[in-house]
Amino acid sequence: MSSYSDRILATKASFIREILKVTQDPSVISFAGGLPNPISFPQEALKQSTVNVIDKFGDKVFQYSTTEGYLPLREQIAERYNKNQGLHLEPKNILITTGSQQALDLLAKVYLNKGDKVVVEEPGYLGAIQTFTMFEVSFLPVTLEDDGLNLEELERALQDPKMKFAYTVPNFQNPTGLTYGAEKRKKIAELFAKYNKTLIEDDPYGDLRFKGEFLPYMGAEKLESSVLLGSFSKTVTPGMRTGYLITKNDELMHHLVTAKQSSDLHTNIFCQYILADYFANNDFASHVSKIRALYKEQSETMLSAMKEYFPSDVKFTQPEGGMFIWVTLPKGKSALDLFNKCMAQKVAFVPGDPFYTNKTNVNTLRLNYTNSSKEVIVDGIKRLAQALKED
Amino acid sequence: MSSYSDRILATKASFIREILKVTQDPSVISFAGGLPNPISFPQEALKQSTVNVIDKFGDKVFQYSTTEGYLPLREQIAERYNKNQGLHLEPKNILITTGSQQALDLLAKVYLNKGDKVVVEEPGYLGAIQTFTMFEVSFLPVTLEDDGLNLEELERALQDPKMKFAYTVPNFQNPTGLTYGAEKRKKIAELFAKYNKTLIEDDPYGDLRFKGEFLPYMGAEKLESSVLLGSFSKTVTPGMRTGYLITKNDELMHHLVTAKQSSDLHTNIFCQYILADYFANNDFASHVSKIRALYKEQSETMLSAMKEYFPSDVKFTQPEGGMFIWVTLPKGKSALDLFNKCMAQKVAFVPGDPFYTNKTNVNTLRLNYTNSSKEVIVDGIKRLAQALKED
Repeated sequence: MSSYSDRILATKASFIREILKVTQDPSVISFAGGLPNPISFPQEALKQSTVNVIDKFGDKVFQYSTTEGYLPLREQIAERYNKNQGLHLEPKNILITTGSQQALDLLAKVYLNKGDKVVVEEPGYLGAIQTFTMFEVSFLPVTLEDDGLNLEELERALQDPKMKFAYTVPNFQNPTGLTYGAEKRKKIAELFAKYNKTLIEDDPYGDLRFKGEFLPYMGAEKLESSVLLGSFSKTVTPGMRTGYLITKNDELMHHLVTAKQSSDLHTNIFCQYILADYFANNDFASHVSKIRALYKEQSETMLSAMKEYFPSDVKFTQPEGGMFIWVTLPKGKSALDLFNKCMAQKVAFVPGDPFYTNKTNVNTLRLNYTNSSKEVIVDGIKRLAQALKED
Repeated sequence: MSSYSDRILATKASFIREILKVTQDPSVISFAGGLPNPISFPQEALKQSTVNVIDKFGDKVFQYSTTEGYLPLREQIAERYNKNQGLHLEPKNILITTGSQQALDLLAKVYLNKGDKVVVEEPGYLGAIQTFTMFEVSFLPVTLEDDGLNLEELERALQDPKMKFAYTVPNFQNPTGLTYGAEKRKKIAELFAKYNKTLIEDDPYGDLRFKGEFLPYMGAEKLESSVLLGSFSKTVTPGMRTGYLITKNDELMHHLVTAKQSSDLHTNIFCQYILADYFANNDFASHVSKIRALYKEQSETMLSAMKEYFPSDVKFTQPEGGMFIWVTLPKGKSALDLFNKCMAQKVAFVPGDPFYTNKTNVNTLRLNYTNSSKEVIVDGIKRLAQALKED
């Protein structure tokens, strides 16, 4: 008998990480990754901020620190949501996490017993599926429609007494690029209020809206057990692994802080100082608008190439922001088969399979447009179209 | 019924963090913390390294990176152990973790099912006790004697089929400051080989030996399932939360990498670049020798003050390195009672209770000497002696 835990034996290594190995070949055009464009990293400003904080705060930036996170950074985050999204946050509502991914691990630790159930979008973010799998739960996948979760499926899931929380990405979802509509947001919030369950809204891409208007969060401040996740990974740097969790539920926050203590004591304080200095001394809004402008161009380039070169029975989403387009092949086709054909054409993407909790050999796939020039995007889509025709 | 997990409801917030709140008062002399002295932080060199890596590697230091960690840093770590400790490591044996604390969380994820059993030193590191508690295990505490674990108790624990691993701190242990002797190290290794169980050696203080000679690790490279943990927290900076896990068991490493993916994707790559540049361009050995010299002085000052002022029935350890001295009060006395009396004298320490898995109101306590000047150390010990006389 193996001495390893049941949880680890049931968890697969990330499928995407395997694909990324294939795409190391520089002659392969890759739409597989989910990397922000390097334009997102304000390199010189971050260098200056590093020098600033070491000169100003000395050994404080290198010492152990508090689990909750650096107070001035939490104040800046609160202020930004209060101003831009009309929330009413205080720093005590904010926990700095080691990237958003850690927030998922902490929420799992605080909520999940073996055998509990979790609602995920179908298709949904594979990093969340992987984390929750580690906690030996079963999934209640709810179909993600063009304007958000299917309400009937959601209500049925909410009635399950073992259901602990729902994990959603309401803006420019990973993997589909879809955004929840205003009407559906209201109805989803009503359902969570009715059944008094926790709604997690993960919003790493919220700042990257390049079309349409900001829509209010579903749960934030409206539900007793509402959790909002945010990140600097898509707008400043993912390399520093600094994200945050927002909740106004003090009891939940207390448990999350305990879980974080035992997970890594606290988030890298050196980088928290740097980020706080960066936000205090730079025009973050104008920086983000540059990223948005680039992603708008890149997405439009990809979409018009797809329109021009793809067979008409291949469908795809039209994102209003974020980093991804979701493609649906004709019924019966397999994205994994197409992936293997595309290797001959030297173009890569992520087949849909890892975004589902209980389906394989699906006819969907994810394309990323943020990391290729317009020329490369068009070239890659042509190659993909060629493989589609041979399929 | 609460919707929270059984694990979080069974886990207490860190006792030390509560004590640290009391010691915020600047008129209190605190021997309670476990903070490295700021002399440990090579501030100017780290500032220079930050500038170096941004100038040299640009956006690479800000982008997502690999779960295993930055290869040049893993090469440096391997080289250092190969040269100084006679190990034969390759980079693939090394996983960069978000501080050593995360290594405990990952090991728990990979090994522990609910109801499994874990050997810990009695008394043992409270951060490890907290982490393992989160995984709903029971503890098999083994008495820590002056030269290491009690062998009879250890063998009995190893015979338990539910026992998954033992967690040890063989050098200048937290909380006792004790170091395992050469003979006992051999016998412990033999026992683990006989019962084929995993031995974890956590060695955050290994570089801080200021007396006696380096003793070989018990399991590292000798046992099939041996894990060695290391950290830069005590010799460069804890603020960057960068530690590492070493094992030559490839299957175990594979599982740990999967667990890390789902926990935080990868460790802060910006800081991994900075540390690798720092090690490449600075004399780390001479930096560490400065920390050692300071801690030697501080520990000797505290020990001679204790000898001079403490009642003779109060016993204490004589550390050969590290950051802590362990005090044993006469039988029947309570360190918690003493703590309350010491508040009147404005001097603080950590009562022994949180270092035990199943004992309360113990007669032991932990003193830290690394964060006070010699004058303050003598003054604080006098205050403690005063409270002891009133006890």
